[in-house]
Amino acid sequence: MSEIGVFPNAWAVIMAGGSGTRFWPASRRLRPKQLLPLAPGDDRSLLRATLERIAPLVPVERVLVVTSAALAEATAAELPELPRENLLAEPSGRNTAPCVGWAASHVRRRDPNGVLVVLPADHHIGVPDAYLAVLRRGLDAASHGAVVTVGIEPTRPETGYGYLEVGEAVGEQIHRARRFVEKPNRQRAEQFLAAGNFLWNSGVFFFRADTILDAIAAHLPGLGQQLRAYDVAAASGTEVALVEKTYDTLPSISIDHGVMEKVDEVLVVPGSFGWNDLGSWTTSWELAEHDAHGNALPQDAVVVDARGNFASVAPGKVVALVGVNDLVVVDTEDALLILPRSRAQDVRAVVEALKARKDERF
Amino acid sequence: MSEIGVFPNAWAVIMAGGSGTRFWPASRRLRPKQLLPLAPGDDRSLLRATLERIAPLVPVERVLVVTSAALAEATAAELPELPRENLLAEPSGRNTAPCVGWAASHVRRRDPNGVLVVLPADHHIGVPDAYLAVLRRGLDAASHGAVVTVGIEPTRPETGYGYLEVGEAVGEQIHRARRFVEKPNRQRAEQFLAAGNFLWNSGVFFFRADTILDAIAAHLPGLGQQLRAYDVAAASGTEVALVEKTYDTLPSISIDHGVMEKVDEVLVVPGSFGWNDLGSWTTSWELAEHDAHGNALPQDAVVVDARGNFASVAPGKVVALVGVNDLVVVDTEDALLILPRSRAQDVRAVVEALKARKDERF
Repeated sequence: MSEIGVFPNAWAVIMAGGSGTRFWPASRRLRPKQLLPLAPGDDRSLLRATLERIAPLVPVERVLVVTSAALAEATAAELPELPRENLLAEPSGRNTAPCVGWAASHVRRRDPNGVLVVLPADHHIGVPDAYLAVLRRGLDAASHGAVVTVGIEPTRPETGYGYLEVGEAVGEQIHRARRFVEKPNRQRAEQFLAAGNFLWNSGVFFFRADTILDAIAAHLPGLGQQLRAYDVAAASGTEVALVEKTYDTLPSISIDHGVMEKVDEVLVVPGSFGWNDLGSWTTSWELAEHDAHGNALPQDAVVVDARGNFASVAPGKVVALVGVNDLVVVDTEDALLILPRSRAQDVRAVVEALKARKDERF
Repeated sequence: MSEIGVFPNAWAVIMAGGSGTRFWPASRRLRPKQLLPLAPGDDRSLLRATLERIAPLVPVERVLVVTSAALAEATAAELPELPRENLLAEPSGRNTAPCVGWAASHVRRRDPNGVLVVLPADHHIGVPDAYLAVLRRGLDAASHGAVVTVGIEPTRPETGYGYLEVGEAVGEQIHRARRFVEKPNRQRAEQFLAAGNFLWNSGVFFFRADTILDAIAAHLPGLGQQLRAYDVAAASGTEVALVEKTYDTLPSISIDHGVMEKVDEVLVVPGSFGWNDLGSWTTSWELAEHDAHGNALPQDAVVVDARGNFASVAPGKVVALVGVNDLVVVDTEDALLILPRSRAQDVRAVVEALKARKDERF
């Protein structure tokens, strides 16, 4: 694939601040989803897999990882090859607009012609080559000044994602985005799937650093002003202290709502590369290899008349399932979770209950 | 309870050789049911609880524990107060007739007027005072030469136990047993329950040592002969070697079939003392305290919309159940079992599977 070489001036911004309660008990407050090896058959954390996946296009020296102050140490430990100045620790979570804006400021200081690809840290990509081709196309458009997003070709009437309505083509495999659509109800989701010109909003974006900072200044002027103050402080070595003092006054808004939906034109690159947002244990079951009865279990599991189950247990522990169907079973050193696959979202209720009683195991 | 004092010449024989695969993964080949604290709310092993329960009637110096050679060490460790000469290790399992006969030989050597109460090591007794009163009644009858058994007043048409048909009374709360009945089918079990004069065969027996040894000599002459050879060998200090060499030639037959059903008269003492044979994890659930939704779980469990479940996990581990009903969940360091309560007997299939692949975790 000669096309997939290092892209000039490309910078990757990996958003790695999530807490991922839906993967409890594997995930914990200080060991969230992106730091876990949740992709079946891959013993790397999702974050490391993200970093290594884009390496052909963006070397690690030009990768910024944004995480929370609480996770900074664990994140640095997970990615020892990442230059420490490339790790940005947010003092508090303010949604994605401040996160993207701050990272873009850093890029612009270091590379005035920098082009960003913004990536979630916790997605699974089934076909990395196709994924890299899509990123290259997005970076290419962004390097010419466009604001670009990746739209995933939908495979089902999913109500858990936002959608992009796709307009006319402006090039090969690149279109105008007609509008952003909030998570639809089932009926609308089915209409979108039938219509054929709606894609899932993947949360992957491209833009030049100066393009997005200009757009932030125009549409979120308070944030724009503060980011300029960070630039000034950086020049005198006092950025960290200023960020510490002011970050939680920044507007808590997503880059989608705050900026992307307001700029004149957004382009969308359609993608079909085995994308999965690993939203819950159900998706882990979906992605894993199954036995003849639809079970995704450790190799040495004992199965008697059991179907459609997912189990994750510590290596060396044997799990025995008799006469149970469609369960999720997750066993860690200090916690054991059992629930039907269809209720995987309800893990959050468990985490809330543990939080409420100040149980450190959440 | 002035009646419940030490009974003169009483000897208890606790049969503790069982393997208890139905309590896997808590039970293992070398850590069987009787060595585990399976009675809810009691952190003693079932064996220790048995020993301590009878202590008001039979002091430990007059308790014999019969187990397998493989379990001798673990059993001695569990009962350090038991004189070592009171622990009889069978080189192989030959059902209960040789076990009872050998123990009776030991008693007769040490106390020619000894009266035996034979007890399984793995039963749960809910009302110990009532139980001791029944044992006292049985010992009393046996001390006058009778062969006596305890019949449990049935509370359901159970098909998993043998029954005793009860005849005329021969004293207060003591009757002639008309016959032993094998495990019935459901229809017969319902007839027994309706008839009112059928009791469950508990496996608790009483007889003088000389009475049962005479009966063995009459009805199992081969065994009787070998037991006399053991007596002779014991006098010259060579019993262990002879037992080692000959034990697996003894007839493998139960004391019920081999002797009790053949003697002229068996008496039965009816008992109602919260008896439970702890036959499977289902009985553990039955005996445990339940929350308002029928769950028997550790105190710190997180329950969301879950009913009728039983869970046993290591202390300090939190179990979270969401939207699951009537499950048995047993978690140990190296194994995790999940199955519906109604299929608790099928644990044996799991143990067989592990045995078949020579997995040491059975």
